[in-house]
Amino acid sequence: MYPRFRLFLFIPMVDFETQTFSKSFITESGDELQNPHLVYHTWGKLNNQKNNVILICHALTGNSDASDWFSGLFETGGIIDLDKHFVICINHPGSCYGSIGPTSIDPNLGNPYQANFPELTIRDIVRLEQQLLDELGIQEIELIIGGSMGGMIALEFCVMDSRIKSACLIAMGASHSAWAIGISEAQRIAIKADRNWNDGFYTNDSPPAQGLAAARSMAMITYRSPQDYERKFGRNWNIQKKQFEVESYLGYQGEKLVQRFDANSYITLTKAMDSHDIARGRGTVKTVLERLTIPILIIGIDSDLLYPIHEQIELAEHLPNSTFREIKSKYGHDAFLIEFEQMNRALRQFREQPHSSLID
Amino acid sequence: MYPRFRLFLFIPMVDFETQTFSKSFITESGDELQNPHLVYHTWGKLNNQKNNVILICHALTGNSDASDWFSGLFETGGIIDLDKHFVICINHPGSCYGSIGPTSIDPNLGNPYQANFPELTIRDIVRLEQQLLDELGIQEIELIIGGSMGGMIALEFCVMDSRIKSACLIAMGASHSAWAIGISEAQRIAIKADRNWNDGFYTNDSPPAQGLAAARSMAMITYRSPQDYERKFGRNWNIQKKQFEVESYLGYQGEKLVQRFDANSYITLTKAMDSHDIARGRGTVKTVLERLTIPILIIGIDSDLLYPIHEQIELAEHLPNSTFREIKSKYGHDAFLIEFEQMNRALRQFREQPHSSLID
Repeated sequence: MYPRFRLFLFIPMVDFETQTFSKSFITESGDELQNPHLVYHTWGKLNNQKNNVILICHALTGNSDASDWFSGLFETGGIIDLDKHFVICINHPGSCYGSIGPTSIDPNLGNPYQANFPELTIRDIVRLEQQLLDELGIQEIELIIGGSMGGMIALEFCVMDSRIKSACLIAMGASHSAWAIGISEAQRIAIKADRNWNDGFYTNDSPPAQGLAAARSMAMITYRSPQDYERKFGRNWNIQKKQFEVESYLGYQGEKLVQRFDANSYITLTKAMDSHDIARGRGTVKTVLERLTIPILIIGIDSDLLYPIHEQIELAEHLPNSTFREIKSKYGHDAFLIEFEQMNRALRQFREQPHSSLID
Repeated sequence: MYPRFRLFLFIPMVDFETQTFSKSFITESGDELQNPHLVYHTWGKLNNQKNNVILICHALTGNSDASDWFSGLFETGGIIDLDKHFVICINHPGSCYGSIGPTSIDPNLGNPYQANFPELTIRDIVRLEQQLLDELGIQEIELIIGGSMGGMIALEFCVMDSRIKSACLIAMGASHSAWAIGISEAQRIAIKADRNWNDGFYTNDSPPAQGLAAARSMAMITYRSPQDYERKFGRNWNIQKKQFEVESYLGYQGEKLVQRFDANSYITLTKAMDSHDIARGRGTVKTVLERLTIPILIIGIDSDLLYPIHEQIELAEHLPNSTFREIKSKYGHDAFLIEFEQMNRALRQFREQPHSSLID
């Protein structure tokens, strides 16, 4: 079940490492993670002032190899310049791509945590990742950037870490909405319905594959748009499989995720996303955002059904030093992993004039 | 597992009957249903000319007691006048509310069909229901009305049955889109992932309840809108259940459906919806619709995410004698079961001036 890393070597200086902490980590829920470890990728070279950092935060089923899934930012025309920047991407705890998560060994038992892995909040994720930045001696983060769950983590970083000097938040909001929580929960119900679920203590040979595939199928619908599905599939029939092409596509997407992702990790991270609420214990969304004075670029996608654009507009309206940019795309929520030209353009203009509040 | 009928007696002259056909029914797929039977409700009295009929078509998990789920059309202010109209609502074959379906006994085996029940198309459903109208001697159908799957059936009726004199089609389109098929398929994958699925041959005591509940949770999301979820639940926490209110709501909705609906019926009817395509074997959507010259009222819902309003606009544009009305609602797709005032107003104006092409 432990997924392999996909390492793409066309980007120079790819490197990934593991940092294990000697201190325990106590989650917001009061659970203890002994000697937690984080896996991270870096690109480029940290300068002497340790302030040339770009921190990239991955989404739900992503991993720390941002040069793969965020390739458009690294390639020619992208805003990352590896002669200047030191880029870090950390695999979020709770995931199954190397950092501590449900597939890691619980030192008390000598077995994987599985469903005993504690609930993590977005703030837990930020606090643990801050410890890695401390270990690396990072003084300033020039830019933090993330979409979807990565954007939620990036926004919490802005609130919790004064090293962040600017941010780009994409396709998420100030808190996880009832709508988004509902979509997560329907997926978790599907996973738990699987014949192999066994309250989360399944074997490596018999994971709750069909439940996870059902969850992924649902998610794939919310990640795109009706127009995109119509354009790609229409009512085309797959003669071989005796089903509509769209059914065959969703089946394939489900199988693909099952090969590379763990069901307990899926539950842990979707629950972390549900915890996302910038205002919790701090006041109102408005007052919390108004205190964030660093330049922040907010990118929304016009066809995003999962985190509709009004959520990004709300962020931009309350952040005192924000720039808002709408991506026009047929691809729905997933556009932040596709529309690199529009994202690079917005990011370039933002970095040239970080204090402007409007860009074309 | 066989759900009980809910009979509401506040509407006068409620009556439901069963019609069993002596002839076999051959489906489009070539399968035979021996002595199929249909359950139907009627209200009011059929006149001597047998032409005062309003035919109501129910949606996916609905039943033939339209006075329950379509109450707003029957009550004071509703467009149904039981002194004038004879109203019929037929439980669609494939359902588990009385008509032939997967829970019915296969006469060849003496057991319920379960997963052996043949695939039905929307056209199969119309052809079988036409036989009931023939038996009743119906000469003309003043108005056929249906929303969602009911609208698909009503539209096919318009094409296939010259007795239909006017129609009201709500919240659906000329064919089931890739988007809608994908949503159906994700739900079917969840049902089939259930530990009790057993390839559709489950016992009455152990139905695939969690898979069906997962499917229902997913469906409930597509039936409403983000605004509606936000208004109803926000991020409210259910202390007792230790989960968000929206999670508790979806869990409850899943359980409720499991009590009243059969998983094989759910699959049979969602597949029938996927078959919906007015153009199949007949030409293009445009040419098929252009031939329908009866007055047709098309109602779309501005917040419908499952059958977006452009699908209803397409219908209205190609139907030569159509009237289009947009319902403004926060409730998403489900608005056709809620916004009775707007629907009655549109229907009343349409029936007074069926040949106008625009109403306010």
